[in-house]
Amino acid sequence: MSNVHSIPINTLRKVIGQYIVIRLKDNVKYKGKLQSFDQYMNCHLNDAIEIIDGEEVSKYGNIFVRGNNILLVQLSADDL
Amino acid sequence: MSNVHSIPINTLRKVIGQYIVIRLKDNVKYKGKLQSFDQYMNCHLNDAIEIIDGEEVSKYGNIFVRGNNILLVQLSADDL
Amino acid sequence: MSNVHSIPINTLRKVIGQYIVIRLKDNVKYKGKLQSFDQYMNCHLNDAIEIIDGEEVSKYGNIFVRGNNILLVQLSADDL
Amino acid sequence: MSNVHSIPINTLRKVIGQYIVIRLKDNVKYKGKLQSFDQYMNCHLNDAIEIIDGEEVSKYGNIFVRGNNILLVQLSADDL
Amino acid sequence: MSNVHSIPINTLRKVIGQYIVIRLKDNVKYKGKLQSFDQYMNCHLNDAIEIIDGEEVSKYGNIFVRGNNILLVQLSADDL
Amino acid sequence: MSNVHSIPINTLRKVIGQYIVIRLKDNVKYKGKLQSFDQYMNCHLNDAIEIIDGEEVSKYGNIFVRGNNILLVQLSADDL
Amino acid sequence: MSNVHSIPINTLRKVIGQYIVIRLKDNVKYKGKLQSFDQYMNCHLNDAIEIIDGEEVSKYGNIFVRGNNILLVQLSADDL
Repeated sequence: MSNVHSIPINTLRKVIGQYIVIRLKDNVKYKGKLQSFDQYMNCHLNDAIEIIDGEEVSKYGNIFVRGNNILLVQLSADDL
Repeated sequence: MSNVHSIPINTLRKVIGQYIVIRLKDNVKYKGKLQSFDQYMNCHLNDAIEIIDGEEVSKYGNIFVRGNNILLVQLSADDL
Repeated sequence: MSNVHSIPINTLRKVIGQYIVIRLKDNVKYKGKLQSFDQYMNCHLNDAIEIIDGEEVSKYGNIFVRGNNILLVQLSADDL
Repeated sequence: MSNVHSIPINTLRKVIGQYIVIRLKDNVKYKGKLQSFDQYMNCHLNDAIEIIDGEEVSKYGNIFVRGNNILLVQLSADDL
Repeated sequence: MSNVHSIPINTLRKVIGQYIVIRLKDNVKYKGKLQSFDQYMNCHLNDAIEIIDGEEVSKYGNIFVRGNNILLVQLSADDL
Repeated sequence: MSNVHSIPINTLRKVIGQYIVIRLKDNVKYKGKLQSFDQYMNCHLNDAIEIIDGEEVSKYGNIFVRGNNILLVQLSADDL
Repeated sequence: MSNVHSIPINTLRKVIGQYIVIRLKDNVKYKGKLQSFDQYMNCHLNDAIEIIDGEEVSKYGNIFVRGNNILLVQLSADDL
């Protein structure tokens, strides 16, 4: 991986402070403002909501999502 | 990960001594006072309760939750 | 692995900027333009769509797919 | 992890020789005297019993429980 | 592992350019010409077909199969 | 782990040559004489039997059990 | 692991060229002549057959079985 700027995790760095949507393996989603993350994709979100089958079911001031449960992350910004 | 203060696990450090809620993959929750944790997210809670489907079902003086079973951690503090 | 150019991940490097299809274990597919990837096969796609049972069900400006969920990657180019 | 005394596994060290309860992922429990453990949470218990649905079903002089199956560990001591 | 030539992955090296059949855990098979592989058994096949229940269901110019999903690999050559 | 003699795997060393019972995740058991093991808990047993639902179903001169499938190991000796 | 000759994988070395039976987690078996293996228990067998519910269902000149799917290995030799 010669070019360190081209790896996916570096793109996450650009959206710190923005809202992202984390989808877990069992189709639950968490939308919140990305505060921090690490190389395992553990994410700290604040102002977060939990979405199941398209419905907002819970609200959280601050949550940690453990990276190994994550299926994908949607970024709201279109130009990255 | 140039800025060591921006990783999620460091935020956990700020809530040691506070009550957190750990959600496991099978939707069981443990609420307790965070005593310590490590890089695997293994957590030691005291004054803990187990919550299944919103009901408190058990009480524990001290428990260890193995990190690899953790789905997410809710922090009660809103400003972190 | 004496010849570093012969490993599969190097072929992915050749298709950066091209559309690929990522198939997950549960038969969901994501088609998008490969922006970056890393050694875990974490992939950043943009202009992406989600395909379930052959139907396009969602559209994403930018997504990250966590590598450990990936079953296979189809490359649109035939000569690699 | 600057303070080595604050990690969960060190708390286990304090209860060597005491009875603990190990809960596995499939809700089986083992209660026994903790003889030793390692960093994977592999535990050696003696004078152990197996508990399924609250019933004691088996008795073991000495057992090893492989750490990766462990969901949580309950400590009988309240002040740790 | 004193004799480096006796490990299974070295045998794969001998069949580069030949057709192999990769069987996944869920009994899907991919037959294609082995282009490259790595130590995780990630494989790059070209001129590949997907076989489910003995039927050819898809055709791919180039695919990557992630190694951790592989159950076994059948080699067409009999003398290796 | 300051005291190397206190880890669980060292206790296994004391029962080499003795009969142990290995329980797998799916409740199958193997009873045999422990010949050797390694740090993954891979075990080589000889004069082994397979026990399903309390019934002896098979007999093996020599078997290897892969450590990652092991739930627990029962030691027949009571004083360790 | 002071005595390198006492680990299970070394016993496999003694049966290279002999027929072994590999049992997978889903109860499928492969019987074949062990050609080589590595530390992950990846095995290369030749003159192999696949056995499901006690019936021979397939025949393979050469197969690789990925180690992480292996439950146990039966050795035909009784004195090891």
